[in-house]
This record gives sequence, structure tokens and C-alpha cells, in this order.
Amino acid sequence: MKCTSIPGIGIIVQWKEGVKMYFIIQDGMIEEVEESEWKKSEDAIGIFTVEEWKKQLELNNNHYFNQQHDSVHFCKLECHAEYLYGTLCILDKVNLKKSTGFAFYIQEGRIIFIDDTGFVSASVENIAKIRKRREYSMERFLYDFLLLLIENDLQHLITLEREISKIEEEVLIRKSENFNGRMSIIKKEIARLYRYYSQLSDVGEGLTENENDYFAKNDITTFKVFTDRVTRLRSEALVLREYAMQVQDVYQSEISIRQNDVMKVLTIVTTIFLPLTLIVGWYGMNFKYMPELKWEYGYPVVILLCITVVMIGIWIFKNKKFW
Amino acid sequence: MKCTSIPGIGIIVQWKEGVKMYFIIQDGMIEEVEESEWKKSEDAIGIFTVEEWKKQLELNNNHYFNQQHDSVHFCKLECHAEYLYGTLCILDKVNLKKSTGFAFYIQEGRIIFIDDTGFVSASVENIAKIRKRREYSMERFLYDFLLLLIENDLQHLITLEREISKIEEEVLIRKSENFNGRMSIIKKEIARLYRYYSQLSDVGEGLTENENDYFAKNDITTFKVFTDRVTRLRSEALVLREYAMQVQDVYQSEISIRQNDVMKVLTIVTTIFLPLTLIVGWYGMNFKYMPELKWEYGYPVVILLCITVVMIGIWIFKNKKFW
Amino acid sequence: MKCTSIPGIGIIVQWKEGVKMYFIIQDGMIEEVEESEWKKSEDAIGIFTVEEWKKQLELNNNHYFNQQHDSVHFCKLECHAEYLYGTLCILDKVNLKKSTGFAFYIQEGRIIFIDDTGFVSASVENIAKIRKRREYSMERFLYDFLLLLIENDLQHLITLEREISKIEEEVLIRKSENFNGRMSIIKKEIARLYRYYSQLSDVGEGLTENENDYFAKNDITTFKVFTDRVTRLRSEALVLREYAMQVQDVYQSEISIRQNDVMKVLTIVTTIFLPLTLIVGWYGMNFKYMPELKWEYGYPVVILLCITVVMIGIWIFKNKKFW
Amino acid sequence: MKCTSIPGIGIIVQWKEGVKMYFIIQDGMIEEVEESEWKKSEDAIGIFTVEEWKKQLELNNNHYFNQQHDSVHFCKLECHAEYLYGTLCILDKVNLKKSTGFAFYIQEGRIIFIDDTGFVSASVENIAKIRKRREYSMERFLYDFLLLLIENDLQHLITLEREISKIEEEVLIRKSENFNGRMSIIKKEIARLYRYYSQLSDVGEGLTENENDYFAKNDITTFKVFTDRVTRLRSEALVLREYAMQVQDVYQSEISIRQNDVMKVLTIVTTIFLPLTLIVGWYGMNFKYMPELKWEYGYPVVILLCITVVMIGIWIFKNKKFW
Amino acid sequence: MKCTSIPGIGIIVQWKEGVKMYFIIQDGMIEEVEESEWKKSEDAIGIFTVEEWKKQLELNNNHYFNQQHDSVHFCKLECHAEYLYGTLCILDKVNLKKSTGFAFYIQEGRIIFIDDTGFVSASVENIAKIRKRREYSMERFLYDFLLLLIENDLQHLITLEREISKIEEEVLIRKSENFNGRMSIIKKEIARLYRYYSQLSDVGEGLTENENDYFAKNDITTFKVFTDRVTRLRSEALVLREYAMQVQDVYQSEISIRQNDVMKVLTIVTTIFLPLTLIVGWYGMNFKYMPELKWEYGYPVVILLCITVVMIGIWIFKNKKFW
Ligand SMILES: [Mg+2]
Ligand SMILES: [Mg+2]
Ligand SMILES: [Mg+2]
Ligand SMILES: [Mg+2]
Ligand SMILES: [Mg+2]
Ligand SMILES: [Mg+2]
Ligand SMILES: [Mg+2]
Ligand SMILES: [Mg+2]
Ligand SMILES: [Mg+2]
Ligand SMILES: [Mg+2]
Ligand SMILES: [Mg+2]
Ligand SMILES: [Mg+2]
Ligand SMILES: [Mg+2]
Ligand SMILES: [Mg+2]
Ligand SMILES: [Mg+2]
Ligand SMILES: [Mg+2]
Ligand SMILES: [Mg+2]
Ligand SMILES: [Mg+2]
Ligand SMILES: [Mg+2]
Ligand SMILES: [Mg+2]
Ligand SMILES: [Mg+2]
Ligand SMILES: [Mg+2]
Ligand SMILES: [Mg+2]
Ligand SMILES: [Mg+2]
Ligand SMILES: [Mg+2]
Ligand SMILES: [Mg+2]
Ligand SMILES: [Mg+2]
Ligand SMILES: [Mg+2]
Ligand SMILES: [Mg+2]
Ligand SMILES: [Mg+2]
Ligand SMILES: [Mg+2]
Repeated sequence: MKCTSIPGIGIIVQWKEGVKMYFIIQDGMIEEVEESEWKKSEDAIGIFTVEEWKKQLELNNNHYFNQQHDSVHFCKLECHAEYLYGTLCILDKVNLKKSTGFAFYIQEGRIIFIDDTGFVSASVENIAKIRKRREYSMERFLYDFLLLLIENDLQHLITLEREISKIEEEVLIRKSENFNGRMSIIKKEIARLYRYYSQLSDVGEGLTENENDYFAKNDITTFKVFTDRVTRLRSEALVLREYAMQVQDVYQSEISIRQNDVMKVLTIVTTIFLPLTLIVGWYGMNFKYMPELKWEYGYPVVILLCITVVMIGIWIFKNKKFW
Repeated sequence: MKCTSIPGIGIIVQWKEGVKMYFIIQDGMIEEVEESEWKKSEDAIGIFTVEEWKKQLELNNNHYFNQQHDSVHFCKLECHAEYLYGTLCILDKVNLKKSTGFAFYIQEGRIIFIDDTGFVSASVENIAKIRKRREYSMERFLYDFLLLLIENDLQHLITLEREISKIEEEVLIRKSENFNGRMSIIKKEIARLYRYYSQLSDVGEGLTENENDYFAKNDITTFKVFTDRVTRLRSEALVLREYAMQVQDVYQSEISIRQNDVMKVLTIVTTIFLPLTLIVGWYGMNFKYMPELKWEYGYPVVILLCITVVMIGIWIFKNKKFW
Repeated sequence: MKCTSIPGIGIIVQWKEGVKMYFIIQDGMIEEVEESEWKKSEDAIGIFTVEEWKKQLELNNNHYFNQQHDSVHFCKLECHAEYLYGTLCILDKVNLKKSTGFAFYIQEGRIIFIDDTGFVSASVENIAKIRKRREYSMERFLYDFLLLLIENDLQHLITLEREISKIEEEVLIRKSENFNGRMSIIKKEIARLYRYYSQLSDVGEGLTENENDYFAKNDITTFKVFTDRVTRLRSEALVLREYAMQVQDVYQSEISIRQNDVMKVLTIVTTIFLPLTLIVGWYGMNFKYMPELKWEYGYPVVILLCITVVMIGIWIFKNKKFW
Repeated sequence: MKCTSIPGIGIIVQWKEGVKMYFIIQDGMIEEVEESEWKKSEDAIGIFTVEEWKKQLELNNNHYFNQQHDSVHFCKLECHAEYLYGTLCILDKVNLKKSTGFAFYIQEGRIIFIDDTGFVSASVENIAKIRKRREYSMERFLYDFLLLLIENDLQHLITLEREISKIEEEVLIRKSENFNGRMSIIKKEIARLYRYYSQLSDVGEGLTENENDYFAKNDITTFKVFTDRVTRLRSEALVLREYAMQVQDVYQSEISIRQNDVMKVLTIVTTIFLPLTLIVGWYGMNFKYMPELKWEYGYPVVILLCITVVMIGIWIFKNKKFW
Repeated sequence: MKCTSIPGIGIIVQWKEGVKMYFIIQDGMIEEVEESEWKKSEDAIGIFTVEEWKKQLELNNNHYFNQQHDSVHFCKLECHAEYLYGTLCILDKVNLKKSTGFAFYIQEGRIIFIDDTGFVSASVENIAKIRKRREYSMERFLYDFLLLLIENDLQHLITLEREISKIEEEVLIRKSENFNGRMSIIKKEIARLYRYYSQLSDVGEGLTENENDYFAKNDITTFKVFTDRVTRLRSEALVLREYAMQVQDVYQSEISIRQNDVMKVLTIVTTIFLPLTLIVGWYGMNFKYMPELKWEYGYPVVILLCITVVMIGIWIFKNKKFW
């Protein structure tokens, strides 16, 4: 026995590892059945591990279902002559780097999942629990299954937007810490989501096209609803990306403004002290014939001169809007 | 009793909170009627709160209209098998952060709003007041209702353009204050509008497509007019975004120019005073055998030397176009 | 009587203000006629002021032609059930801020302009003067009229390109004055034109689509020629925008290069004078026991030391390619 | 007699200036014929100067072929009701600023060039020399003619790519001279080519559409091959543009890095010399009661102090990775 | 005999150079046959060198297959009236600069490769070894052949992503070496791949369109699967490009931050030492009447003054968040 928490649902379900599972859809219900019954039923759902599926193919000497199931990098749907073949990735919204995936074959009235992660079994059992309408069908099941992949995603996007918004406020009051590091993580997550939704919407469109006529025309509409939802999520991801780029621009701008401020301080300090240093250096010269040095009021006059220089400096900088 | 000011109209209308409202369209008029009459009429408009609608569904043991009505984040239209389901957000152009929304179901000759905000009741009553042509229909009503969502928007966009233009002028005469903060608000508002119009135009296109044939072919043309108007508004939002980005570039450019100016001041001051400081330091040295110090004209010659150095410095900087 | 110079033609035509004008197209001619004849003719062109049109509608108790004619912000064409309704803006290429506009209704064989500016009357009379082919039609008239809106535009775009090119050359020889201010005006003009052509091409496409079948199929081809011309102008505007952005980048780059040059001057001056200042300060110290000060060759050796320091400094900077 | 080198071929051909030329396509050959034969032949090619063409139109009192032939700015193809009208520009790949153009009319089985440059006569004679297949047709001739316009263009693009690549390498080893000036020329040439290919592909598409059914369906495929070739060239131009923008970014980045280096030198020099200058200034003070000055080991201790300060400075900068 | 390692497979195959090779597809097998048999078979594959192909054409006096086979710059497919003509480039993922290519002609049931590199012979022999399903066809062979061109490409893209990710991490901890040089290579490789996939997907689409009806309708689906795979790879290349641009922005940002830090050090050092230098210069003045100099506590007071100045400086900079 093993446990999986379903990303996108948050429910933990137990399931039997490494054991084939057979379901059929009947009278608005998804029921687990024996292999023998499953084989002769319509609207049948099967779940195999990669290992089991290889055994099955060897037993039946079947070379049609010969796609690679090992490494899943995309959500995709390929329309082959004999079947639809697809893979799906599940984004883990907590651990951003992890992602798991599985493959599936669809034929008329039959869908077979090749899944080592346990996500599919848990999801199917979970969908089975929810009450259905009478005319529940394979297409409705697929729709419910696909919806699981994007459940809570809008909330996730809103969380990301809030994070960017918070960083933007910090930048605008010039209190941002480790800006590039934090934005880099957010931007990668947005790119990951954008890619995910792009691929999912391709899958949705592939199902809607229904080239092999595996799906009933009436129920195709559900795939369109799914596709539109994913497309809206992708639009939101794009909006977020624009927002992130805009905040990056503001940050870059603020760095330049801050540099200008530092430069002004340097220039003011230099411009005020260099003339003074010249004056005091001047009367440090050792010429024998320098009348000022012996003049009684020389020292007070130099003091006044220095004060005047400082005043003029400050006046000029104030005038030129240096601060 | 409760009051709502309708964004987009600016009229305050009273309406009965938490009470179902039933309207029918008859002879070019929108009339409020009793539930019994409403149920058997064609071209019927119903307004419910989320609470009331849930009760209705339970009473009728109906599981078809089972969409989530709680949180409205998009303007969207979903074409389900049994009905069109949509949600609409109303942008508040005064309080940029606030936005309210409601849901609606459309079937042939019947539209039901699920609205807790009171916007719909007020709007419908308002539309009812305006004189109609004889052949007024559900499609015409929907068109009038959708137009309310974008009324005054062009004016709002023109206001935004003027604000950007004002900021640009300030930047060009180098008198901008809190540029990044102000532009940030404007850019967000533009993004918000762009997103709003994109979604509204998707809704308009969905109505124009008329997949379930709920709408009369003749009146579909009104939805196309609405879609085109929204699309033009979206184009304007895009133009504004381009403009804002352009002003941001000019600002960045002006910061660099200003920094160049500060650097030039620093360089000029340093280049003029360092040689002078060296000269006066030179004659501050305490060597026993320094003939100049005892020379009668040493001091006047040094004064002339210093003046020459300053003149050369100024001449060089003038020549190199430093100011 | 009043005068208008027609933008796009450059011809000044007198016309009667506030007076309805009626034209019909007959035997390859556009002739002014009386209202009575106009009303029963096919291929009729009418020109009204906003005021007169309102009166007309009230007289006929007509509520169909109820569009707003007051403020024209777009070039647009709306395909309503009963008529085509459109507005057109005329860009004034001399006074960039001014633009005037008018509205029009099209029905089968009838076009009505609602125009307070006098542009339409002047243009129609102008078109009437040019010799026509025998089979002159409403579609040919519309085509001639639309062409007026973009006459000389290519020349205007070429002028803009030359201005940008001139600014670019100034930037490359580092002699640009008020770059941001000048480019800002050009960029706004390009954006204005791009928007204008985008909208005009939408109008052209709307006419080409001919949804209400108001236009003869044979003559639709002229609208397509117009649309393609406008689209080419829009492409040119896009090319100009790209060019302007490229020049902006070059300018930004030149600012950075100039700043590098200023920094290098500062660094060289500082690096050469600070060591010298240290040396002369060193022998300004008042220690009792400083043998060098009493040494006969102390002073000449310090002079040699300073020259050596300067030489090394210059050698290092030459070596590091500082200038 | 006059000579023209055909851009895109590199062959110099003599031709009779200001003289009409008449060709017909017959039995897989292009033959020059007399006007009388030309007029009654199918698949006829005529070449006129602008002047001659005007005379022709006046002679025949013909007002259909009334397009402007004077100034050619675009490659374009307009599908008028009575004929196809187009203009073509020939890019001169050696002299980037020069470009020449000509106009043409196409009707069923007849093409008329209006050309003052001599390019067309030379090209047609050149095409005539090459051996043809038996079923040579007007469409095949047009295809051969259009191919001349893009011959050697791929080579030209590869040359441009190599130039950019060379500039990039110079930038990366920090030895670029007049970067902005050189890149500016390359970017303009790329934009010019991109525009040229965009327009040519529009022409190709216009021919492929074959709206007036002037061309045989079988031979339309050649226009599609031409269009695809031009589209590929346009893609290459876009790739080059991206590359140029990338190199510009690298250059900008290198300027910043270099500035950082200059700033570090300034900071190190200042930070090391200012404390030393303070120390030697300190013992230049003239206080009566300064015990150190009279101390026997004062001077050596100050020397040690200065050495220590320098060492600490160097150690800090090494530690902070300043060089 | 000669050896080739097949990029994309990694298998080294021997093949006979400069010798024609003839294959036919029969009963799910690819078999090498004699020329005579090959000529009369359907589903025949021929491989020629450019030299041999020229000889063939001369022998048969054939001028149809007259495309240039010498220099292959694109992957392309041209749909001529008599045949499909295409070229394919093979990207060498180890040696980024090298790429080899070959041409091919397709007619109904016949494909002829013109290849000097040996890649095709090796690939065909390799494909021949793998067991086929019974109904193996020309279309299936083409699909297998095309898949070879993108085998392992996903792995290559993942490697590139890891490299960028590594560089990004180095930038974020400010330890990047030769950033621009390394990123430049990666960006060029991404551009190369993007271009390659764009062209391959055009080829795939060209095959899917099947304009000349050379391919069986049932097997067209395999070309669509190929096209979709290439399109997904292209999307990944685009994602990588975005990522690379984002890292470039972070790098640029980090350079600015570092420059700010350097500027702050300079400003702090200058601001603290210039006032001190002024003070010590002050008491280095040689005025006869300077009471402080003779005052017993003058020296200690100056020491205290200097300490106070330093303390104030540090306090100000701490307060202003200078470090
Ligand atoms: Mg989008
Ligand atoms: Mg969007
Ligand atoms: Mg994108
Ligand atoms: Mg956007
Ligand atoms: Mg951008
Ligand atoms: Mg941007
Ligand atoms: Mg940008
Ligand atoms: Mg637009
Ligand atoms: Mg966009
Ligand atoms: Mg845009
Ligand atoms: Mg735009
Ligand atoms: Mg930009
Ligand atoms: Mg364009
Ligand atoms: Mg363009
Ligand atoms: Mg654009
Ligand atoms: Mg462009
Ligand atoms: Mg861009
Ligand atoms: Mg750019
Ligand atoms: Mg491309
Ligand atoms: Mg483009
Ligand atoms: Mg590209
Ligand atoms: Mg681009
Ligand atoms: Mg870019
Ligand atoms: Mg960009
Ligand atoms: Mg940029
Ligand atoms: Mg993509
Ligand atoms: Mg993408
Ligand atoms: Mg692209
Ligand atoms: Mg992307
Ligand atoms: Mg872009
Ligand atoms: Mg960017």
C-alpha cells in the first residue's frame, strides 16, 4: 500500500502499487471491475505501471502501443493512426523544481494510463466518489480528469501577482533586498506555468479536433470549455510576465537614480573642499616675500574667505537642484 | 432597500436587495412580472442572488446549473451543452483596485443573472426606462447591457493618455517628481484595461459565434458591433502601453544625461583644483636649498602660474564641449 | 460662404456652410441636385451638418440613424442591421495635434455624410470635377473619396524617415541637441499614423466584406486595392518605428560611451596628481630629523621623482588604452 | 545604345533606349517580334518607357491603364478589375542607397512593362537566351523573371551575418572601433532587405491567389515556390536582425563592464592616496607643542605608518575582488 | 569504404562512397536491390552523389530535375509541378559550426536522395535493420527518416537550459567569468536550433499538405505527428531564448549594482578624508598671527576635532544606508 497527495486537489489517497486497476463507466458511475469484465466492456479505464504495460504488450505480441513511456517532459497529445497517445506533466506548485508525469492511450471507448506515480489511480478513485449525472461518459470523465490538472491554478497565479506587487512596493520605497534573486525565481515559475498552459491548451485543442472520431460530438463541447479555461490561465501568466518585466525596469531605473544621488554627494563634497584645501595650501607656502602672512588681519580674512567659498558652493548646488 | 451607483452610467438606482426579480421583453418594452408569468414567457430575464439561486436549484433538484458563482475573476463565456455560462467583471474607474462581478446563464429565450452586487437589477431597470423600437429582443437587450460595461471607457483612456503626456513633458524639462511611482500606477491601470477588453472581446466573439443557435441570426450583427468596439478600445490600450514604455525610455535616457552632467562637474572641479593644489603644496616643501622661495618675484610668478593653469583648464573643457 | 483647405489635396474650396447638399451619380458624372430629385434617385450622396441631421430625424420621426455624431475619435465602420455606420478622422499633417472628423451612413445606393467641418462638401465637389469613366458608381466614388484620406501620405512618411536619419547622423558624430524632445515628437507622429492606418485598413476590410450586400461584387475589388495601400502605409510606419527605436538605442549607447570618456579623464587626472601631491606633502612635514631636507640635492631629486611618476602614469594609461 | 548591369545577375547587356520592344512566347522560345505581330499574339510581352506608354494611351484614347508610373517606392501587386498592376524595386546590393524600379500591367496572356531603367529589356533578353522546356508559358516567364530579383540574395545575407559575427568577436575582445556607426549601416541594410522580402512575398501571394484567373492553374505552383523562397529569405533577415540586436546588447554590456573597471581604478587610487596625504599633511601642521616632530624616531615611524596604510589598502581591495 | 557517425543516432555505419544505392520497400522490409529491379518497382528509394545524379540526367536527357544540389543552407520542401524537391541540413550538436546537408526528390512511390555526405545511406541502412510492421510504406519510411533528424534534440535543449541556469546562479552570487562570451555562444546555438526547427516544421507541414497527392491519406497522420514534435521543440527553443534574455538582464542589473557599490566606497572615502585634509592643511598655514598654533592645547583639540569629523561622517553614511 502507498499514499499520494494529489497536487491540485490536496487530498491524500491510498492505492495499491504495482497492481493493474480496471474501471468501467456505467449508469453514471465509475466502478472498479475485474480484468475479464473490463476487457469486454465499453467505456473502460485501465491503469498500468510502465513495467506491467511492457509485460502486457509482450503477452499479446503487440507492437502498436510502442511509444516511450519513461521520461515525460511535455504535456502533449499525438494523433496516431491507431490511437491517440499523450503524456501529461503535473506541476507541483509547492516544490517548484519537481514535476511528475504519466502517459495515456485513447481508443474508441477505452483509455489506458501508463503511470508509475500513483497520481492517476488516486485521481480516478477521487472522481469516482463524486456524484455524477445519469449520462456520464468517457468524455465527461476525461474533462473531470483534466480539470484536476488546473484546479487552484488561478489562486496560484494570484499569489504570484501579490508577490511581484510586494516586491514592486519595496523597490519604489527603495528597500528591496536580493531583488534579482527573488525576481529570478518568480520569473522562472511564470515561464514554467506559461509553458504548461500552452501545452495543455494544445492537448485540449487536439481532443476538440477529434480527428479519429473517438468522442461523441455532443460531449466535445466540454473539451472546448477546458481549452478556453487553460487559455485564460495562459493569458494571465502572460500578464504576470509583462508585470514582472515592468517591475524589473522600475528596479533598473531606481538603481540609476540611486547612483545619481551618490554621484551628487561625491561632487558636492569635492567641489566644496577642494577650493578650501587650495586656500589653506596657498598660505602654507614658504615664500620669503608673502606680505599676507605677516599682515595682522591675514588670518581672519582667510577665515572669511573660506566661509564665503562654502556659501557660494552651497548656493550654486541649491540653485542647480542638486538636492 | 439599497442603492447602487452604476459604474459606466453614473446613475444611482434603488433596488430591492435579496429579492428575486423577473422581467419579460414584450412589444418593445422590458416589464417586471410575477414569477408565475415569467416562468411561461419567452424572452424572460431573471435576477437572483447566489443564495436564492442555490435554493432554486435544490427545490428543483437540478444539477445542471452547477457552476461556481462565488468568485469572479474574469469576463468569460463558456458554451456548455445545456446553456451558455458566463461571468462579467465591472471595472471601477475611480477606485482602481476594486472590481465587482456577477454570473449569468443563457438559454434559448431566457437569461438568468446571479448577482449579489445589485449592478444587474439597477442596469436592467435603467435600460427598461429608455424607449425601445418595436422589434426589441433578447439580443438587443444583451447588446444594450454589454454597452453599459464600456460606456465612458474611451474618455477614461483619453484621460490616461493626457496623464502620460503630462509626465512626459515634465521629464523633458527635467522636473519630474516620483516618476516611477506615478508611471507604475498608470501602467498597471493600462494592463488592467487591456486584460478587461481582451476578455470582453472574447465574450463578444463567443456570443457572435452562436454555437447553440440561441440567438436570432438577424440580431447577431449587434454582438459583432459590440466586439469591434471592444477591440478598438483594446487597440487604444495597446497604443497607450507603447506610449508609456516610450516615456519610460525617455526618462531612463534623461537620468543618464543628468548623470553625465554631474560627472562633468566633478571632472572639471577636480582637473582644475588638483594641479593648483600641487603647485601650492610644492612651495610648501621645507627643503633648505629651494632658490625660488627666496627669490623676490617667486610669489607673483606662482600667482601667474596658477592663473595660467586655470585658464588652460577652462580652455580645454570649453574646447571639448564639456559644457 | 466658407473656405476649407483639404488636407491631403492642398486645394482650397469654398462651400455653403450649414446648408444641406444633395448629389447624384449619373452617366459617369457627380451632379448636385434638389432634395426632391435626390430623394427618388439611386446612387445618391447627401451631406448634412449634425444639426440638420437631427432635424431631419425628428421630422421623419426616425430612430434608426441614432448614432452619436458629436465626437469622432476613430476611423471605424460598423455593420448594423439597417445600415453601415462609420466615422472618419482626417489627420492634419502640418498641425500634428489637430484632427477633424465626420460620420457617414451607407445604405444600398445611398450615402449620407454628417459633417460639420466642410471637408466632405469640398472633397465631393473636387472629385466631381475630375473626368470619370462611363460606368462610374457609388463604389468608385467611395474609393476616390477614401484615396483622398491617404494622398501624399507616402511623402509624409519619407519626410519622417529623413528626419530620423538626420538625427541619427548627428548622434553618430556626437552633435545631437535636444535629442529626446525631437525624437519624442517623431515617435508620437509615427504612432498616430500607425493607429490611423490600422483603423483605415479595418474600414477598408469592412467595406470589402460587404456583409449587407450593399455594393456590387465587381467593384468590391477597388476597396481591396484601397485596403492593401493602407496596409502598405502601415507597414512603412512600423518600419519607421523600428528605425526610431534603433536610433534611440544608438543614442543611449553614445551617452554611455561619452560617460566612459569623462570617467577616464577624471581617473587619469586623479591618478597622476594624487601621487605628486603626496610627494610634495611629504617634504612639507616639519620633522626635526629629516635628512633629505638638508641634503644639497634633495630638491632636484624630488623634481626628478615627480617627473618619473608622471611618466609612469602616462605610460600605464597609454598601455591600458585609456585614450 | 546603352548598357546596364543587371543587379542579381551581374551580366552587362546592351539595349536600345527609348525604343519599344515586343516579345512573344512560342514553342518554348521567347522571340522579339514586330508590333503588328505582337498585337495579335497570345503570351505577348511588351516593354515601354513611361513616355512611350503615355503616347500609346493617348493614341488609343485609353483611360484604364492610368496608374502613376513615375515614382516606385514599393514592390506591390494590385488586383484591379481590368488588369493586375504592379511595381517592382530592384535593390542594389553594392550601393545600398540606390534603388531603381519599374511598373507592369498584366492581363490574360499579355504583360506590359513600363520601365525607364533598362533593367527589364536586359533581363528579358537574358532569360530568352537560356534554353527552355517545350511547354514554356507566360507563368514560367514571370517565375524566371521574379527569381532574378532574389538571385544571390542568400549569399548577400551570409555576408552580412559574417560582418556582424566579426564585429561581435571584436566587441568580446574589447577592440571594437566605431561600433555604433558600423552596426547602424548593417541594421539599416537588414531592415531594407526585410522590407523588400515582405513586399516581394506579398507580390508572390497576389500572383498565387490568381483572382482574375489570368494564370493557368497548373503553373500557379511556380508562384508558390517563389513566394516560399522569398519568405525563407525574410526569415533569414529576421534572424540577422535578432543577431544584430543581441550583439548591440553585448556591446552595451561591455561598455558597462569597462566603466566599472575605470571606476575601480579611480576608487583604488583615491582610497590609497587620500590617507597618505592626510598623514603627511598632519605632520605639516605648525603647532608649537607637537611632541612627535621633535621625537628622534618620528620620521621613520611615519614612513612605516604609510607603508602599513598602503598594505592594508591593497589587502582590502584584493579581498573584495576589486581586480 | 568510408565511415560516418550519424548525428542524432550516435551509430557509426560503413558505406560505399560514390556508388549508387537502390532500395525498395516490400513486405514490411527495406531491401537493397539492383538498378534494373529498382527501376520497375514501386516504393523505391535511390541514393546518388551529386556527380552521379548529373550523369543520370545527361544520360536520360532529362531537364526536369534541374535544381541546384551544391550548397544546402536550409531545410526546405518545394512543391513543383512534377515533383517535390527538398533539402535537409543536419545539425552537428557537438561541433556547433559544422553542418552538412543533402537534397531529395519525391514523386509518387519514389524518393531519390542526392547526398555527398554519406548520411543518407547510413541512415537508410540503419532504419532497414529495425523490425517493421507488415504494412510498412514510403510514408512510414519518410517519418522514420525525419525522426532521425530530431532524435536526442530534447536532451540537447535540456543541456543548454542547465548551462544557462548554471551561469545565472554564478551571476546571482556575483562570480561570473566571461559572461558575455559564454552567453553569446549559447544564444547563437539557441538561434540556430530555433531556425532549424522552424524550417523542419515547414517541411513537415509541406508533407502534411500533400498537394500532389503523392502520399496515402491514411499515413499523412505520421507527418502531422512529426510536425507537432518539431513545433514543440521550437517552443522549447523559444522558452530557452526568453530565459537567456532574462539572465542577460539580471547580469546587466548586477553590473549596475556593483558599480553603485564601487561609487559608494569612493564617496565615503572622499567624504571622510577631504575634511580631515582641510583641517591639517589649515594648521599648516604660515600666518604670523595664528593664536591656536601657540596655544598649549591646540594639538590635542585638533586631534579631537578630527575624530569627531570621522565619527559624524560614519554616522551620516550609516544613516543613509550607504552600506
Ligand atoms: Mg494571450
Ligand atoms: Mg494578454
Ligand atoms: Mg509570448
Ligand atoms: Mg499583455
Ligand atoms: Mg518588448
Ligand atoms: Mg519591455
Ligand atoms: Mg525592452
Ligand atoms: Mg492594434
Ligand atoms: Mg500583447
Ligand atoms: Mg502593438
Ligand atoms: Mg501599436
Ligand atoms: Mg522598447
Ligand atoms: Mg508589416
Ligand atoms: Mg514590417
Ligand atoms: Mg506592433
Ligand atoms: Mg519590422
Ligand atoms: Mg522588441
Ligand atoms: Mg529593442
Ligand atoms: Mg522566422
Ligand atoms: Mg516583425
Ligand atoms: Mg526569429
Ligand atoms: Mg522580434
Ligand atoms: Mg530581443
Ligand atoms: Mg526587447
Ligand atoms: Mg532593450
Ligand atoms: Mg511557441
Ligand atoms: Mg512559447
Ligand atoms: Mg520569434
Ligand atoms: Mg515565451
Ligand atoms: Mg519582443
Ligand atoms: Mg526584454
